[in-house]
Parts: sequence; C-alpha cells; structure tokens
Amino acid sequence: MTSQHRFSGFCVAAALAAAFYGTSVSAKTALDAESTDPVTLGWMQGFPPPPDKLVMQPESDFFSFPKMRWTVCHIRELMPTKQVSRGLRAPVPLEYAPLPGFDQVSFVPLGADTPMNWAQSLSANYTDGLLVLHEGKVVYEHYSGCLNDAGKHAAMSMTKSLTGLLAEILVVEGRLDEKARVATLVPELRDSAFGNATVRQVMDMTTALQYSEDYANPKADIWAYSRAASPLPKPEGYTGPDGYFEYLETVKGNGKHGEAFGYRTINSDALGWIIARVTGKDVAQLLSERIWQKIGAEQDAYLTVDAKGTPFAGGGLSAGLRDLGRVGQLMLEEGSLNGQRLFPKTVVENIRAGGDRNAFAKAGYTTLKGGSYRSMWWVFHNDHGAFAARGVHGQTIYVDPTANMVIARFSSFPTAANAAIDPTSLPAYQAVAEYLMAQ
Amino acid sequence: MTSQHRFSGFCVAAALAAAFYGTSVSAKTALDAESTDPVTLGWMQGFPPPPDKLVMQPESDFFSFPKMRWTVCHIRELMPTKQVSRGLRAPVPLEYAPLPGFDQVSFVPLGADTPMNWAQSLSANYTDGLLVLHEGKVVYEHYSGCLNDAGKHAAMSMTKSLTGLLAEILVVEGRLDEKARVATLVPELRDSAFGNATVRQVMDMTTALQYSEDYANPKADIWAYSRAASPLPKPEGYTGPDGYFEYLETVKGNGKHGEAFGYRTINSDALGWIIARVTGKDVAQLLSERIWQKIGAEQDAYLTVDAKGTPFAGGGLSAGLRDLGRVGQLMLEEGSLNGQRLFPKTVVENIRAGGDRNAFAKAGYTTLKGGSYRSMWWVFHNDHGAFAARGVHGQTIYVDPTANMVIARFSSFPTAANAAIDPTSLPAYQAVAEYLMAQ
Repeated sequence: MTSQHRFSGFCVAAALAAAFYGTSVSAKTALDAESTDPVTLGWMQGFPPPPDKLVMQPESDFFSFPKMRWTVCHIRELMPTKQVSRGLRAPVPLEYAPLPGFDQVSFVPLGADTPMNWAQSLSANYTDGLLVLHEGKVVYEHYSGCLNDAGKHAAMSMTKSLTGLLAEILVVEGRLDEKARVATLVPELRDSAFGNATVRQVMDMTTALQYSEDYANPKADIWAYSRAASPLPKPEGYTGPDGYFEYLETVKGNGKHGEAFGYRTINSDALGWIIARVTGKDVAQLLSERIWQKIGAEQDAYLTVDAKGTPFAGGGLSAGLRDLGRVGQLMLEEGSLNGQRLFPKTVVENIRAGGDRNAFAKAGYTTLKGGSYRSMWWVFHNDHGAFAARGVHGQTIYVDPTANMVIARFSSFPTAANAAIDPTSLPAYQAVAEYLMAQ
Repeated sequence: MTSQHRFSGFCVAAALAAAFYGTSVSAKTALDAESTDPVTLGWMQGFPPPPDKLVMQPESDFFSFPKMRWTVCHIRELMPTKQVSRGLRAPVPLEYAPLPGFDQVSFVPLGADTPMNWAQSLSANYTDGLLVLHEGKVVYEHYSGCLNDAGKHAAMSMTKSLTGLLAEILVVEGRLDEKARVATLVPELRDSAFGNATVRQVMDMTTALQYSEDYANPKADIWAYSRAASPLPKPEGYTGPDGYFEYLETVKGNGKHGEAFGYRTINSDALGWIIARVTGKDVAQLLSERIWQKIGAEQDAYLTVDAKGTPFAGGGLSAGLRDLGRVGQLMLEEGSLNGQRLFPKTVVENIRAGGDRNAFAKAGYTTLKGGSYRSMWWVFHNDHGAFAARGVHGQTIYVDPTANMVIARFSSFPTAANAAIDPTSLPAYQAVAEYLMAQ
C-alpha cells in the first residue's frame, strides 16, 4: 500500500461502518469515557504535539479509538471540506428553561436488570454533547470530550437525513418526481443498479445493490468506494473511479428494487447527485440555502468533499450541537421555526409516516424492531411517534412529537454500531420524554 | 515525482512567490479580467464538472492562472484547514454611506501617461472584492470574480500582518520580550539561524537567513519548505522535515541579523511558533480570541494547516472582505472598534512608526521607496502616514489615518508580485483618499 492510499476520504470506514447492525464491530473496551477523554489524553496539545500525541492522516490512525474522540471535532483539520454557510445574519438564540432534576431521571437499559440514571448514561455513551429541547426551549445542555458550544462535531450518517430531507422537500414542492427512474434524472447512472430504481427507492434505501461492507475482505466494495472518494490525486496506475459520482456508475444490482431495506451509504450519495441535477446546486449549497440560512443557525456547518469537490452526502457533515437541535425543532414543528415556514408541513408528515415496515424488518435490526426508514430518517413507530437521524458512534437527532421533545446528541462511542448504544439510549430518551410530559 | 508530491501544502509557490519584488514573475498575459472571470469560464460547474472545468490538486494545477481565480475563494475545498472562529454572537453590521461618484475618481498610474478611473482600475487589477471605509462607514463596496459578500478569499501574505499584530499586542502587553533571543523561547530553534535572532528581528524580517526562493532551481529551499508543509503523509523514503516547525529548525544563517530587510515567509512561521509557546495557543486560536471574536465579524475565517495541524502563519488565511475591512478599521482606530478597546493604542503606534528604513531600502522595492516593514505590516512613510497588509496577487488592507480611510481588497491578478499591481493601486488609493478628504 503506497502512502497515497493512506490519505483517505474519511468516507467509508467511519461513516458507513456499522450503523447497519448486521455488521456491528465488536469493540469491547476497558477504556471508559473518563479515561479516554481527549483533553485529558492531550491529543494535539503542544507546539508541535509530541509524536505520541499527534492525530494525523491516515484515517486508520486518526479514526482509531481513542484518538477518534479528538478527531470527531476536528475533521476539517484533516481533509478538504466545503462550507454550509449560515449566511451573515444574526443567529436566533435558543430560549432556555433548564430543569435541574434531569440528571436523576432513571431508566432500565435494554437487557439490563438494574436502573441507570441520565447522568450515568452520558458517560456510558461517551457523550460529547447533548441538548434537550422541550416545547421549544432548552431544558438540558451538556458538553464534554472534545466539544463545547462553539465547536463542531462529525454528524456521520445523520448527514443522510439532511440529504433525505432536502429530497423530500423537492418531492413535496413538485420539483422532484419520486416515481421517476434515476436514469431519467442522472443519465450517467443508466447502466448502474441505480438506473432503473425509482427516486423513492433510493430515498428509502430499498434499492437492491451489490455492495459489500465486509471490512475483513480487502476486495469488498467499501474499499473501492473509499479509494474513489479520497480527495487526493489518485496514485499512479490507479484505474478505478475518481469521486463519488464515478463510483456510483459502477454499482451493480443484486435482486429486485423495493423489496428489502438495505442500509447503504451509496444511496445517499446517489440522492445527492439527483438533488444536484434537479436543482443545479450541490448538497452543501442547498443545505445552506434551504436549512442553515433559515434556522437562525449559530455556526456554519461543513461537508467533506472528494477530489472533485463533491460533498459527501452520505456522511460528511460536521455541525454545532445547537444547530442540530434547531434542525430537530424544525422537524418537530413540521417545517416551521422561529415563526417562519421553511417548507410545507407535508414534508415532515411524509417522513414521520415512515417507510415500508416489512421491507425494513428484513434487515433484522434488533433494537429497532417494528421500525422503518423514510427519506433517510429512522422512524420508530412507537407510541410517541418518534423519529430520528442517526449516525455511527452514537450521533442522534431524536424527535418525539408526543412529548414535544427534541434530543440532539454527539458522541464518540468506541463501537460504530448504534446497536451497541441503543440499549442505553432509547430507554433513556423514552424516560426523559415521560419526565418532561409530567412537568 | 510521485503523486504525493503533487498534493501540496498550498504554501510556497502561492504565498511566498513574488511578494518580494526582486523575484517578480513575468506574466504578461492577454487574458484580461473579463475574459478570465471564473464564473464565465465555468470552473467547477456541473455535477460532476466536465474534465476541462475541474480545479483539483495538485497545486501546480489549482493555482495556475486563470484557474486560480476560482481557487482563491475555495482554498478549504482543496486542503485541510483550521477555523478562526468569530464566536457565536451576532455580527456588528457595518454602517453604509455610499458615494456614487466613486467610480469616476481619476488618477495616473505610475509610469503611465494617461489617467485611469477607479472603475477601470478594478478590472485592471483583477479585483474580486473591494471595500472602502471612510470615517468608519462603507462608502464603496464591490464584488466580482469568485467572491460575494458571504464568500471568503485567500488573504495570502496579509496573514503575516495578523500574525505580526498578535505578536505586537503580546509585546506591548509585556507577555513577549522583543529583545529576547528566539532560542530562549523556542529551544528547538537554538541551532537554526533563528536561534540567536531577537524576536523583533523576526517580527521585522531583518533576520539573515540562507533561504532561496528561486523557483527555477529544484534544489531551492522553497521546495523543501513546500514538501515539509504538505498536509499529506510524507512519501515513503522521505527523510526531510515534517511540518513548518521541523523545517524552521533546519534554516541556516547567511550574514548578520538586523542589517537588511529580507522578505521571507519563514519568519512569520517562526513568529507563529514563538506566539504559540508564549501563549499556549496557536495562531488560529489566538486570532479568534483576540481579533475575530472581538470585531463583530460576520464570518469565521480559516487557516490552512500542515500535516500536524500547525496553521500556516505566513500565508494560510482566508476570510470575508468585510471582516478584513473591520480589521483595517481596528487598526485605523488604534485598537478600538465598535466602542470597545481590544488592545492598547501603543500597538498601532508602534506599527505605524515603521521599521528600519535603511534596512528596508537594501531590498530594493521600486514601488515602495522610502518605506519600511514593521511587525509584518508595510509602512509607506508617505504624507498620509499610510500602512498596509499585503499579499501576492493584489491582496491589501490599506489604512490611511490622514484620510480616515480603510481599503480592503481581494484580487486574483495573474502576476504574484504586487510590484506589478502597485502602479495602478497605490495612486488609486491616494486619489481616493484625496477624494474622500474633499467630501
């Protein structure tokens, strides 16, 4: 492996990884949140940092645990990125109504015998930032690890939900036909498996794609995707695809579209391409114009890019915690925020209604039984009608319409798969929802 | 040359280049500003952009003219960067008092026979953005090329002036001894030429360094610097320095410090190191805390970094035009802005007083005769007491205390050396100053 290969696009290993439960990485570690705190460990401290405190390319180093607990707040310092501008106007401050009893909210983790309280769950989940909004006001806010209120954190696959939201907006506005075949919008994808899929199948990830995320197999598609997505000039002799778009053209089919849910990041990047073709704007620009400039965001966000400047629509976003809270509140309020309507209510209604639950069941998510995936949002179909954006290592925007609650969480859990984190997260969210409803 | 070498740190060729008049690049071109407009030329338009419209690594491509007219607004999309945060508060809007007669202000370019007016000078200088403040109010604002009011542009060597400003603040505050030998503050530089130089000699670039910027010579120091500064993992077999700091340790002397001005970017990076050691904060963080969070900035700025995350203190800054106008106004108001004092008046008085004019004269700048360089600001010693931050390809913050005027300009002139641009810039600034004084 030449050193070019080592400067990666921060694409696959991190962002796709095991958000899909079936490929959960086993990462039992004795290193708890306190002993892996990136500030305590001194990553990148000193001028220059001592060799054993450097966090550098390649990705296999910078995204290794516990270094990744520093990296998740510093993606742009390791690779090229594109701004998601908040615009130039004043931020709209969040209102605060803190509830001191929060830390004592108690719940029983899935599969456990003994209860845990909220404060304990923060450490258990390697939480870097957590914001709870109730009735539109911040009732709880917490930062640790690498994050503070002025910092940004990798959103990982929550990026998908923003890409999906943009697509759903375009669908509802009549600018994107969800029934259209992808090839009619992006002719370059005609001979790929995406070509005869509908836009909706891409949005809901019910495409049937031949795409392996088996990390143990050096010939797995995920590695080819990673090489294509690298922002570096390709190594001499490299003949594979250059960039997200060229890679997508090579994806082959595996069965019939529309029958089973298959969580594959390449759907999000295909959707990013579709959006760009329909609007003439890439995901970074459209996300700025439709969302970030309209929510009173405090901070710009950004997306990683490939060597041709294409934003990583499937996992490249980094943003401030409060701004993700604003996105959650926007979803809770069905497309309105700060008294302004950003998009029709139908957009959120469509997402909240969920996708094909039978198709979803085939994927076998044990912590998400009965759920579905719609426009790249996870829909729990629980009593509260909750839905969420989710990313590996514990990233979440959790929207509970019944409790009038939004939770935004950034974390750096050692295991990528949320299936490892859900047992202490989902019951905690439910307990908090009930606590808030009782206030 | 392996492809690793082609992913450069955006360091030397661009930022050092020929700000030093003696190394002026001859770039007579028939391509005027209109015919090289990056929007018209369609750089990076399309999904993906067609191959002949891509702007990608390596630097020899992305910083070639006319592609660089796109690149100067998109540095972060091509390499890793570190944020210079504006903080989270509302920007302080600039006041406007536009003067419609501005475009007709007339002047005679140096060495020319016929007059030119202000509007003509914008095109002649490949201006991307120009802001004029008079008595603290915006009297003129113009965007073209790749820039708009919400965009950022490479500041090139104006970065040095901000690094120098931070150092001067620390000197005046008594936190940095300008008479101290560099080796006492940064022991790693003990055996380099910087070791026995004083902090002041570094700040004023009167160090005597063996450092060649001869682009025709593949063994010139500038190329070794470029390789060291690259944010990429070093190629296999590479045994040279990794990062700005390690490179600086290798710099050898050439004569006696303090006798002649020698414009060498490595002084700015040495100063960045000194500042970091003295404050415990790198230039990006200190620039945020001391300046960007205090000027009511509209946008975050950013700095490029090497592979170890060290910001490029000598040329890595990109920022919004109005924010550079705010910096200029801060200098004009001697350390105050928006009714708030950011640092003692003495800081600006020290800079404005200038450096050693005899030492400066030895460098032979034909358009800057009688001038000097102080704390990395250019001091004209003209009737108006003007001083400036300057960067290759026409970047300027020009402060005229007599006319109570600040000009901030971003541009993408094909020739790096400001000596090629000064003949139409400096007389234009003087004419505008006189026009404003007559209002």
